[in-house]
Amino acid sequence: MSNSKYIDSYPFYVEPFHVDFTGRIFLGVLGNHLLNAAGNHSQRRGWGIGALNETRHTWVLSRLSIEMMEMPRQYEHCEVQTWVESVMRLFTNRNFSILNADGKPLGYARSVWAMIDMETRKPCDLLTLYDGDILNYVVPEEENICPIEGHGRFRFREPQLLRTIDTFYSDVDINGHINSIKYIEHILDLFPRERFENGGIRRFEIAYKTEAYMGDRLSFYSQPAGDDETDIEVRKVAIKREQNEEDFISAEREQARPEVKNDGEVVCQAKVCFK
Amino acid sequence: MSNSKYIDSYPFYVEPFHVDFTGRIFLGVLGNHLLNAAGNHSQRRGWGIGALNETRHTWVLSRLSIEMMEMPRQYEHCEVQTWVESVMRLFTNRNFSILNADGKPLGYARSVWAMIDMETRKPCDLLTLYDGDILNYVVPEEENICPIEGHGRFRFREPQLLRTIDTFYSDVDINGHINSIKYIEHILDLFPRERFENGGIRRFEIAYKTEAYMGDRLSFYSQPAGDDETDIEVRKVAIKREQNEEDFISAEREQARPEVKNDGEVVCQAKVCFK
Repeated sequence: MSNSKYIDSYPFYVEPFHVDFTGRIFLGVLGNHLLNAAGNHSQRRGWGIGALNETRHTWVLSRLSIEMMEMPRQYEHCEVQTWVESVMRLFTNRNFSILNADGKPLGYARSVWAMIDMETRKPCDLLTLYDGDILNYVVPEEENICPIEGHGRFRFREPQLLRTIDTFYSDVDINGHINSIKYIEHILDLFPRERFENGGIRRFEIAYKTEAYMGDRLSFYSQPAGDDETDIEVRKVAIKREQNEEDFISAEREQARPEVKNDGEVVCQAKVCFK
Repeated sequence: MSNSKYIDSYPFYVEPFHVDFTGRIFLGVLGNHLLNAAGNHSQRRGWGIGALNETRHTWVLSRLSIEMMEMPRQYEHCEVQTWVESVMRLFTNRNFSILNADGKPLGYARSVWAMIDMETRKPCDLLTLYDGDILNYVVPEEENICPIEGHGRFRFREPQLLRTIDTFYSDVDINGHINSIKYIEHILDLFPRERFENGGIRRFEIAYKTEAYMGDRLSFYSQPAGDDETDIEVRKVAIKREQNEEDFISAEREQARPEVKNDGEVVCQAKVCFK
């Protein structure tokens, strides 16, 4: 538990179905805990989704970078600590630490969030919204302990198409968007078993660019970025309906899977670094 | 909370990323809570996976049927109650109720479990194991309140192939098996958006037949079973490697995706009933 008034603790327990075949927590599940911790921290300060919806604003996750020295294991009791590192006009930086039951740091994370107007979908000025109230929650510099690299830049030259998937019911959240955690799962599913056997993931970065929706078809492109590092770009694919797709409840499906117009539009980019 | 010494309570909270686009909990997430509740209940009585592993036994889930009057919604605090209904030589029946914060039942579930020897993979005699200790935990009849139908039978005639998928890292549990919850997700992903819009799922049944492993290719077959009812059969498919699969870290993938020999082997069967 943190004693700082700027830092909140979010406890979590590593459930049996939340670990991979090595017994370590799935990165997507860990990411979900981070987002829950962020949500609670905002909520307690009057900046939660509920309060914001009344003024028709909402948070949008733009970047997430997680770096783990050690992944929590099945049956471990752990904790996420989170705080606001800084606020700029259009973005705020939120950091995280992940601690085990003894308070030992297992890893850290950084995130970038924008606030948008739910009607115009345009970003808001965080420094003037609610008279700049958010600035009251920025952590003092000496409490901002997050010793991992910032978010990197992505430069894709000629990435290789690895896989194309359709998206379905389980992929979308309450807003009908492909949920941020599901991208992490689909990206890690590109890698073979062996990559997870030798210590697993050291660092994972993701930059969310555009929303995708249930029924969108997504292509995953990869580009080597160094030893044990791979960059992944996820792009929308225009859907050409095939004959055999018409068989199953076709009228409903037609509606469920609107033709994607923005062929090639980048949905998100990620970097996966294995140990 | 239950006051019965036979019935345990497992509280859960409906997290934002655990709800579908209608704001109701994903059935797979609810199933996960049921299995956690079952695990804890067994654990407290000395029949948990940990204790069993010492004697080289483990529980295997054979059937799960969930029937919901109402699905828990985002931000709700709910509870699973679970107890042992009966014990036979090779199977035990475990029941569940799902309650909201006011103690109102939202639904019920039934499950069937076998105990296997981890080396021979053969079922054990529950009535003689540990001198029949498990019989001490069978609930008295008057406390066994689970007013939903028992598990049905499946009869597939000429089911129609809906989709074939490969399985990946995110699909498998700590034993390297495709995890029981992931089947629920993949099965619900066969249905179009509209099916979930009008009240969602009323009843879901699944019968687990054979283990599948990371890299196995699975085909999903459907057969209408009445108004708003569909039976699904999941079968293994022999993998013929295609040229373009060789591109990505091919040697590793070769190992990760062993050729399936048992073409057509039934992995599980399910019934999905919408409202």
